[in-house]
Amino acid sequence: MLLLPFSENEYKIRIRNVKNGMAEQSLDVLVITEPANIYYLCGYDAWSFYTVQALIVFQNAELPIWVGRQVDSTTAHVTTFLPRARIVPYPDVYVQNVDRHASQFVADVILDEFPTAKVIGVEMDAYYYTARDHAELVKSMPNVRFADAELLVNWVRFVKSDAEVAYMRQAGCITELMMDSAVKAAMPGVRECDVAAAIYFAQMSGTETFGGLPSTSPPHMGFGSRAREAHPIFSDRPIAPDSVANIEISGCRLRYHAPMSRTIYFGRPCQRYRDLAAYVIDGIDASLEVVRPGASCEDVELSWAKSLSAHGVKKETRLGYSIGIAYTPTWGERTASLRRGDRTILSPGVAFHLMAGLWLEDTGITITQSFVVTDKGYEALTSTPRELIVKD
Amino acid sequence: MLLLPFSENEYKIRIRNVKNGMAEQSLDVLVITEPANIYYLCGYDAWSFYTVQALIVFQNAELPIWVGRQVDSTTAHVTTFLPRARIVPYPDVYVQNVDRHASQFVADVILDEFPTAKVIGVEMDAYYYTARDHAELVKSMPNVRFADAELLVNWVRFVKSDAEVAYMRQAGCITELMMDSAVKAAMPGVRECDVAAAIYFAQMSGTETFGGLPSTSPPHMGFGSRAREAHPIFSDRPIAPDSVANIEISGCRLRYHAPMSRTIYFGRPCQRYRDLAAYVIDGIDASLEVVRPGASCEDVELSWAKSLSAHGVKKETRLGYSIGIAYTPTWGERTASLRRGDRTILSPGVAFHLMAGLWLEDTGITITQSFVVTDKGYEALTSTPRELIVKD
Repeated sequence: MLLLPFSENEYKIRIRNVKNGMAEQSLDVLVITEPANIYYLCGYDAWSFYTVQALIVFQNAELPIWVGRQVDSTTAHVTTFLPRARIVPYPDVYVQNVDRHASQFVADVILDEFPTAKVIGVEMDAYYYTARDHAELVKSMPNVRFADAELLVNWVRFVKSDAEVAYMRQAGCITELMMDSAVKAAMPGVRECDVAAAIYFAQMSGTETFGGLPSTSPPHMGFGSRAREAHPIFSDRPIAPDSVANIEISGCRLRYHAPMSRTIYFGRPCQRYRDLAAYVIDGIDASLEVVRPGASCEDVELSWAKSLSAHGVKKETRLGYSIGIAYTPTWGERTASLRRGDRTILSPGVAFHLMAGLWLEDTGITITQSFVVTDKGYEALTSTPRELIVKD
Repeated sequence: MLLLPFSENEYKIRIRNVKNGMAEQSLDVLVITEPANIYYLCGYDAWSFYTVQALIVFQNAELPIWVGRQVDSTTAHVTTFLPRARIVPYPDVYVQNVDRHASQFVADVILDEFPTAKVIGVEMDAYYYTARDHAELVKSMPNVRFADAELLVNWVRFVKSDAEVAYMRQAGCITELMMDSAVKAAMPGVRECDVAAAIYFAQMSGTETFGGLPSTSPPHMGFGSRAREAHPIFSDRPIAPDSVANIEISGCRLRYHAPMSRTIYFGRPCQRYRDLAAYVIDGIDASLEVVRPGASCEDVELSWAKSLSAHGVKKETRLGYSIGIAYTPTWGERTASLRRGDRTILSPGVAFHLMAGLWLEDTGITITQSFVVTDKGYEALTSTPRELIVKD
């Protein structure tokens, strides 16, 4: 049983693009550990990245090699197009054992496949590539040079294919359903955790034609005075009357994300708060107006900042980030950011979460928009109205 | 508003225990990056570990310093007992930016607080301590020696206090409710994702008196032929008649976990499969019989292996692992394992997930038990009967 979400041909194009990137950096071998990058290149999908696993791309071989724990190799056979010989498991004695480290096994696989390799790229700042993973690899291969190939694959992922955008649209549909469920469930007296339950239920159920997956992160939900916080976890306290809630969520379809935040006000917001919401919404409109191929990330942020400064409001954090495939702990791709100084040029198929969140001294407001750049402008990945949601 | 799940005194005892461990390794400073360790020592709880954050313990100061992203420092004020001066945020320009790295900021904080520090401990194999995090720290502090203090805090966490065990019991209650919901929802024709939706709903709702939290991992659910896999993700395909499902889940209460797996058979299992289930259940009974203070981890596994080998069955993977506080990606504490060669001695307050999972060539079966060691033996953290669940 093979469970590929894309054609084998699409995977081979991706691998070719990565090899081109390797050639530019003169890498003989690339050791990929970020789960999203592994999934992107071969389809491997399991919750197994808490022990060492890697997809190794060799310039001297057509197909990469998957290395991982023995009990997870069955999943490699089921979810990737790799032939048996390119799936190389290590035994359980390497798992969380002081005497051995699975990076030693990875090194052996590399030396076996490409004994004359001179330069090996590694993802120095990738999640799940620990300081020790690297140290063991370096110690095991004293005769090669290591180069930081951080984000090489992430940048190949930056421009999405039509097939990828189709999954992101589906993720966006699920996001809308999740937010609808949250708004329906949340009211004064209801426990925060019961709102979360409604969100999760909608997230996994998806629609009649496709189901959802867990996203990289729990819903970020800040209630009451905790609306000042950016990434709080919900509690089992009841929602207070005359309070706000910031809810940031993402639907997930085959590991593709399309996040969204909204603020709910329980009661009647004061004029100042309504004004703040209006400024944020205007700012998003102003940002999206400049989104088109050829514009830069910085242009989008500048338009936002100009719109907000007219109201005397400033946002210190970046305005958004590239999105697509993601595994825990974040749905950001860690490549381009919508912020000052980022001159990355937008082109059709790049996708962002425009994260118009303000966290102030005494409160916060988050109304956001995920979008993909099209030939002429952008396509919104969610159609939930951009407004302050008031439950009075 | 301060949201501590434990008394300030309990945190101070924990910090003292860590300092004792540091003294044994002659560490002046310990840089803690594993989110579970940070939570354990100061209460900090946010989904912010996808950018650099650290709790830094100094031998020359009573209280540690929290370092993290500016937008998350509000959460540090709300969820920890640390005074304002011990919460040191870095600005957003350090976030996912090629020109700067937040580890440089961490280094500055250390040098400022303890300029004469000679030996600095780091958690070399901790999740979210990347190769680059370490390289930048080393480069920024050329005059100190770095020592691997991996698992130092994890081992302090190994023995749980009564207050911690109380939370683990609550987590176990939630786990039971989750499994009940799964068993109720799952039947031929129902989509796998709809079973997941039911599990998640129960997980967050918790009970009338306390709510749940997301666990470190999605439910590991292998349906049909995918029951051979250890950590598969569910899909939106309908459950087939005459098939099996392995479901591994964990309730979570204030970040404490109590995992459990069960196998559901849809239809009438053949005699061989029933036999397999009986062997596993006997094996668990045999393992638990030897659990008491003074026994070793290896003793537990030996008793299991002896019981199973009488039926000609072998399990290659470890039989279990220490549990407690956890953040994504795993609910294991990465310290003691129930396996051959692990001579760690059991004592009251240590807790394990006895993971009696068998993944065979053509099928799999998982019936497991989380427990905490007591004065005389053990206490089960879930009371769901250990049996093969048959839905005919």
